[in-house]
Order: sequence, then structure tokens, then C-alpha cells
Amino acid sequence: MSDLSSLICDRIRDVPDYPQPGVMFKDITPLLADPAVFTAVVDELAGAYDVDKIVGIEARGFILAAPVAYRAGAGFVPIRKKGKLPSETLEESYDLEYGSATIEVHRDAFTEGDRVLIVDDVLATGGTAEATVELVRRAGAEVVGVAVLMELAFLKGRERLAGVDLRSLVIV
Amino acid sequence: MSDLSSLICDRIRDVPDYPQPGVMFKDITPLLADPAVFTAVVDELAGAYDVDKIVGIEARGFILAAPVAYRAGAGFVPIRKKGKLPSETLEESYDLEYGSATIEVHRDAFTEGDRVLIVDDVLATGGTAEATVELVRRAGAEVVGVAVLMELAFLKGRERLAGVDLRSLVIV
Repeated sequence: MSDLSSLICDRIRDVPDYPQPGVMFKDITPLLADPAVFTAVVDELAGAYDVDKIVGIEARGFILAAPVAYRAGAGFVPIRKKGKLPSETLEESYDLEYGSATIEVHRDAFTEGDRVLIVDDVLATGGTAEATVELVRRAGAEVVGVAVLMELAFLKGRERLAGVDLRSLVIV
Repeated sequence: MSDLSSLICDRIRDVPDYPQPGVMFKDITPLLADPAVFTAVVDELAGAYDVDKIVGIEARGFILAAPVAYRAGAGFVPIRKKGKLPSETLEESYDLEYGSATIEVHRDAFTEGDRVLIVDDVLATGGTAEATVELVRRAGAEVVGVAVLMELAFLKGRERLAGVDLRSLVIV
């Protein structure tokens, strides 16, 4: 395990039974509060890409994606839950364990051919990430990759992102 | 008006009748998508302060506050809507035009005496900002200031932040 991986794992707090009984929630707020680790994570997520825009997913995803955009000298584009973006949007729905969710992006968020990196905190089942890739492509941009702080391998989210360059700083 | 102020105003889009009829919404997504203006805004918001932590308010507030934390070499602390933070919290309620809202912060988010800057995109009626100041103080930290991209002066939010150092990059 790299030095950064072990710093990250030290700063992630396991919260049992949140948001529901039987789930062990990975709380990244101790990591965000530590300037050294927060900085190292942003630098590493921004590192290897030459991109025009960084996409972040409401709400927790904004916390890493926006500084990655700043670090990379790229623009930032928010993906939000349905009804939260004020101008004309494209939308994409995906299944959850119970029910479904819909996310949106502004129709004019990208210039044709923009190179885009999607940044999020956690890759779990991959449903949100897969819908985001689809949405960015429909909006006319190229998905250069998906970069996440932490991948929960047992939920197999990686399998839903076949053909997409996926980079995880920590796999648990 | 400074050069940065006019760049900011150029990149804010007025969306009529959102989220409800008669309201002119200030959409900052064109600003976020422009790397030069986004970078200048983050640098300016981070500029004048020596702080330990930057506080951001869910959800849109995260988009500016998190890169300001990165730029300032500070930790980032999220303020979230009730029920969204996994560990033990302090909460604060405040009145909205119709009904009320409750926001929370983790009880252990700060070290006693931490110097904190609250960063948000828009200061409107000041209800959320006032509740955030109260929450940060109750959690044992010192509020060094509130810094916002845009202040809607006609809503008089500034009056609810008496005694707090408030800095707005643009006042409209």
C-alpha cells in the first residue's frame, strides 16, 4: 500500500448502521479536515490528466471535484439531482436498490469535444457513475476517465464502467 | 467596478422565474465552467485570511468553499442538511419564507479555537449564514469571517451578520 493510501485509510471513519442498519458508512470528513491529506488527495486525483472540464456529482462529490478543477486549471461542471439546475437540462435516470434516481446536467455545460474527467468520493454500485458517463457523452463531451477517492470493490461498480479509464486512490 | 467584478458579472446568468415565478435566479454555472474566472474567484476568496478551516454549506456552497480550503492550505468542514452527516452532530434551525430549515455540523469538526472562514456563493436573506455562524461558534471555533461571491443587497442579509467580517466579491 502506498504512503498516500495509508494516510487516506487513517482518515476515513467507519460509522456502523448509517444510513441504515447493517451498512458500514465510510465517513470522509476527518480526511477533508486534515489539510495535508486533503491537499495530497486533490493533487493525486488531478495528477495524470489533461482535461478541459471536471464534473462533480451533488452533493458530496462537489467537495473533491471542485478543488480538482481548480488544481487542474479546468472548468467545473455540476451534475445535480432533478430540478436543482436552473437552465435547460439533459437528464438520465438509473435504478437504486429500491426505486430510481434522476440526475441532470445543463444542456450547454460543454463545448463539443471537451475532454472531461468525472471525480467522485466513493464508487459503490456504479449506478451514479454510469449515468454520469452517459450524460456527459450525450452532452457532446469526451469522458477521459473517472477518478475516485475510494472504490468499494465488493459492490462491483467497476463492472458497470467497462471501457472507461477508472482510477481509485484506495480500493477496499 | 474592479476587473474581477466585471468578469464575475459577465459569467453570471440571470434565469427568470426560477425556482418560482417572479424570482430572478443568479446562475453561477457559466462562471464555474470558465477556468480563468473560477481560478480568480477562488484566489480572491482565499486571499486575505489566515485560517485553520474553511466551512462550506450544502450543496452549491461546497463548489467554492472546497477549492478555497485547498488554496488556503486549510481543512474543509461541510455543513449539511439535517440527517446527511453520519456521526454525532450539532444542529441549528432557522426560518424560511414558508416554514423552516435545519442544518448540522459534526460535533467533533473543529479543534477548540480553530480560526474558521465561512465561504458561500450567494448571500441572500442571510438566514443560512447566520445559522452557520452560530453553529460554528457552538462547536468551539472562532468565526474569522464570511466570504461570498455575490451579495444580493436588497435582501439585507448583511444586517443579520452584525459584528461578523463580511466580504462580497460582487454586490448586486
